Amino acid sequence: MGIKALDYESLNENVKKVEYAVRGELYLRASELQKEGKKIIFTNVGNPHALGQRPLTFPRQVVALCQAPFLLDDPNVGLLFPADAIARAKHYLSMTPGGLGAYSDSRGLPGIRKEVAEFIERRDGYSSDPELIFLTDGASKGVMQILNCIIRGQGDGVLVPVPQYPLYSATISLYGGSLVPYYLDESANWGLDVNNLRESVAQARFKGITVRAMVIINPGNPTGQCLSEANLREILNFCHQEKLVLLGDEVYQQNIYQDERPFISARKVMMDMGQPISKEVQLVSFHTVSKGYWGECGQRGGYFEMTNISPQTVDEIYKISSISLSPNVPAQIFMGLMVNPPKPGDISYEQYVRESKGILESLRRRARIMTDGFNSCKNVVCNFTEGAMYSFPQIRLPPKAIEAAKNAGKVADVFYCLKLLEATGISTVPGSGFGQKEGVFHLRTTILPAEEDMPEIMSSFKKFNEGFMEQYEDVKI
Amino acid sequence: MGIKALDYESLNENVKKVEYAVRGELYLRASELQKEGKKIIFTNVGNPHALGQRPLTFPRQVVALCQAPFLLDDPNVGLLFPADAIARAKHYLSMTPGGLGAYSDSRGLPGIRKEVAEFIERRDGYSSDPELIFLTDGASKGVMQILNCIIRGQGDGVLVPVPQYPLYSATISLYGGSLVPYYLDESANWGLDVNNLRESVAQARFKGITVRAMVIINPGNPTGQCLSEANLREILNFCHQEKLVLLGDEVYQQNIYQDERPFISARKVMMDMGQPISKEVQLVSFHTVSKGYWGECGQRGGYFEMTNISPQTVDEIYKISSISLSPNVPAQIFMGLMVNPPKPGDISYEQYVRESKGILESLRRRARIMTDGFNSCKNVVCNFTEGAMYSFPQIRLPPKAIEAAKNAGKVADVFYCLKLLEATGISTVPGSGFGQKEGVFHLRTTILPAEEDMPEIMSSFKKFNEGFMEQYEDVKI
Repeated sequence: MGIKALDYESLNENVKKVEYAVRGELYLRASELQKEGKKIIFTNVGNPHALGQRPLTFPRQVVALCQAPFLLDDPNVGLLFPADAIARAKHYLSMTPGGLGAYSDSRGLPGIRKEVAEFIERRDGYSSDPELIFLTDGASKGVMQILNCIIRGQGDGVLVPVPQYPLYSATISLYGGSLVPYYLDESANWGLDVNNLRESVAQARFKGITVRAMVIINPGNPTGQCLSEANLREILNFCHQEKLVLLGDEVYQQNIYQDERPFISARKVMMDMGQPISKEVQLVSFHTVSKGYWGECGQRGGYFEMTNISPQTVDEIYKISSISLSPNVPAQIFMGLMVNPPKPGDISYEQYVRESKGILESLRRRARIMTDGFNSCKNVVCNFTEGAMYSFPQIRLPPKAIEAAKNAGKVADVFYCLKLLEATGISTVPGSGFGQKEGVFHLRTTILPAEEDMPEIMSSFKKFNEGFMEQYEDVKI
Repeated sequence: MGIKALDYESLNENVKKVEYAVRGELYLRASELQKEGKKIIFTNVGNPHALGQRPLTFPRQVVALCQAPFLLDDPNVGLLFPADAIARAKHYLSMTPGGLGAYSDSRGLPGIRKEVAEFIERRDGYSSDPELIFLTDGASKGVMQILNCIIRGQGDGVLVPVPQYPLYSATISLYGGSLVPYYLDESANWGLDVNNLRESVAQARFKGITVRAMVIINPGNPTGQCLSEANLREILNFCHQEKLVLLGDEVYQQNIYQDERPFISARKVMMDMGQPISKEVQLVSFHTVSKGYWGECGQRGGYFEMTNISPQTVDEIYKISSISLSPNVPAQIFMGLMVNPPKPGDISYEQYVRESKGILESLRRRARIMTDGFNSCKNVVCNFTEGAMYSFPQIRLPPKAIEAAKNAGKVADVFYCLKLLEATGISTVPGSGFGQKEGVFHLRTTILPAEEDMPEIMSSFKKFNEGFMEQYEDVKI
């Protein structure tokens, strides 16, 4: 028998090269343990509802009515749904004559793309064109689509922050391009130094790689830092000089836990800078309904907005969207609701504000509890989670632990995280899945477990860590 | 200013090579005309709800409740929802502790994959393993993912029926492989002759292409034929001899409009054939919630089932699924409902049967009205639509029309379809978008317009066609 196309030996090599740690060895082991009856705290993925966060009520009411439009003709509908949810459901249904069961345009419903454009305009103070906004099945799908357009082969490089969210490394591998790392500075609260960028580009050139695009994740994943306006200006100048497409992963823009650096979009900074930057830098910005105080991950809704991209390229991207016909329509409506929430005076306004503020304030407290908790542990140091949904503590592993990991055939941080999982049920992702400097070890955890569970989780972590460090400490007291 | 990565000139060439006619020139022109106020009948895409088909009530009730689980605690819920919809919503919510807002496993919810496996077992009489079933955002996404694993470069060929659904040609272009066409025989009701397959493979080899996979679309799109069991056996023998992965696009399995050849799955035939075929042919079968009497296109739900694929390859496919985290969860629930509909004795059973039978019987009548209508037109011949959702009439264009098209810079069938669109508002897809033999012209239309509108649409088509033929006929009477 010869080898067949779906035998491992003959698969597309780019597929095999992909690594995706967020759902990698740790996650698989955690799933096994869960099946065996162990209580697992899944902090490997930013998946708030899975850890008990309740969905916002108003958007769920609206989407439920859109799924069951016959309820709108029922005289009892007012007993279960408020009038503004009913009105809003009618508003969205009027945009899609076939309802949620009809494919939309491949870019998404025009009416919702218009609402997104209005949101961007309110946020940034610059008008936005709905024709340059495409709705997607989550932000990841949009990132993949754009990278597929950019990457022509191994000679094409994409600058990616390290530590990075593995969507980028995985997608660049899958499409056969080259990841060009630029290191964030842990000692400067994961700051981005433009000199590092220059060095990364120079090194890539030396290897024959043409750098074509740069990814920023703001707020950072897994690192949680918020980029300052000054830093964004430097980045935009750099992209302009180097003729790089800037991919702005801004999915955590609602998740800000400090007041010094509020979120500012790459697009706003670019427009503020004026010509030539504002007219020449190619920017694609990504957003989602999965993060923020929404956390509607399972709905798979997102968008990307293109700036300074020619109509001919937009047409090509549209054509590629067409192959899979349309993003899912219910999540398009979630996106409409996210960018156009209840307004003061609406029946559901107070509830909406109460729910969203409650989530955001609790996340802010949890960010603090987690960072402080890590910093109280032996051989653990952690920058404050300024934004996003993650803590990324450095674990200073003693040489004996690194040795023990080697003997077990594991990367040292994988070794640590596996032990943590077995001992406590806390499922994290080893720092090596995101990239880190040689010989430095981290783990990523979300700040999403319920606030009331946090103290116990942190004390369970602390206890494990102490035992671990004691076991592998060189000099015992 | 140099060229930037998202300038048209420097895009990934594979992206530029993609053609996707279903949403191509005709669709774009139709959208323009619609904006200008013209009434357009969109028969370019199999999008039943957009043409007035009502969704089935029970699944919408269940998904609405899953979106708004707080309704389950409302004492008035029974006024708007039947008890079995409430019970079913609880059943699905119990499978996803975070509800619809939580990412599921990247393969889909285990409980729903189990329901799919049970459906396959009931359908085929052979057990199915949920671990080999992956839920997807529609069947197209699954097809793209599998082709991405198979195609390593231009030297890899995929046998695709011609005429074909352009998902296949587009995806093969996008991933840089080679489409190897095999022609369906229009004079034998679009039958598949295995000798043609052999010839296609031989020709591909001569060009240095290794054929690695074969696509069948059963029932056919755009051609509407249903494959016989004997034909499927020949195909499976051929795949076995040639060591081809068989991709079974079976999304229209509910759409059957004759009694001679009921749908039979490739997997059942393969299992019936016994060893070595049943143990050696690699098969991936695709299904969806978008077609059948469901037509829930906008929800984007589907699955694929793998047979005779090694665990190591399944792990690779799982890893690739992980990059975009999870298929959308609401559509997973639609899939669960589709494979596990209300049973006799359930409160909603009769309504469910009445609605689904009503849709299917009407489609059957519409298939007949359309085929007969086309065959009553001058220079038009059309095989009966045995299954799926399309008619694919051959239009025998007079030489003068072909000449006029050439002068207008159009492919002849595009020229015809554009004139049809401008005159009648009927938006079809030219046969050249699906592939056809040199010098033979077709168009594809869905059979989905409302039954009561059918006579008018067909008479409007007939009138246009007569005028067209008269205008371009060589010898005028």
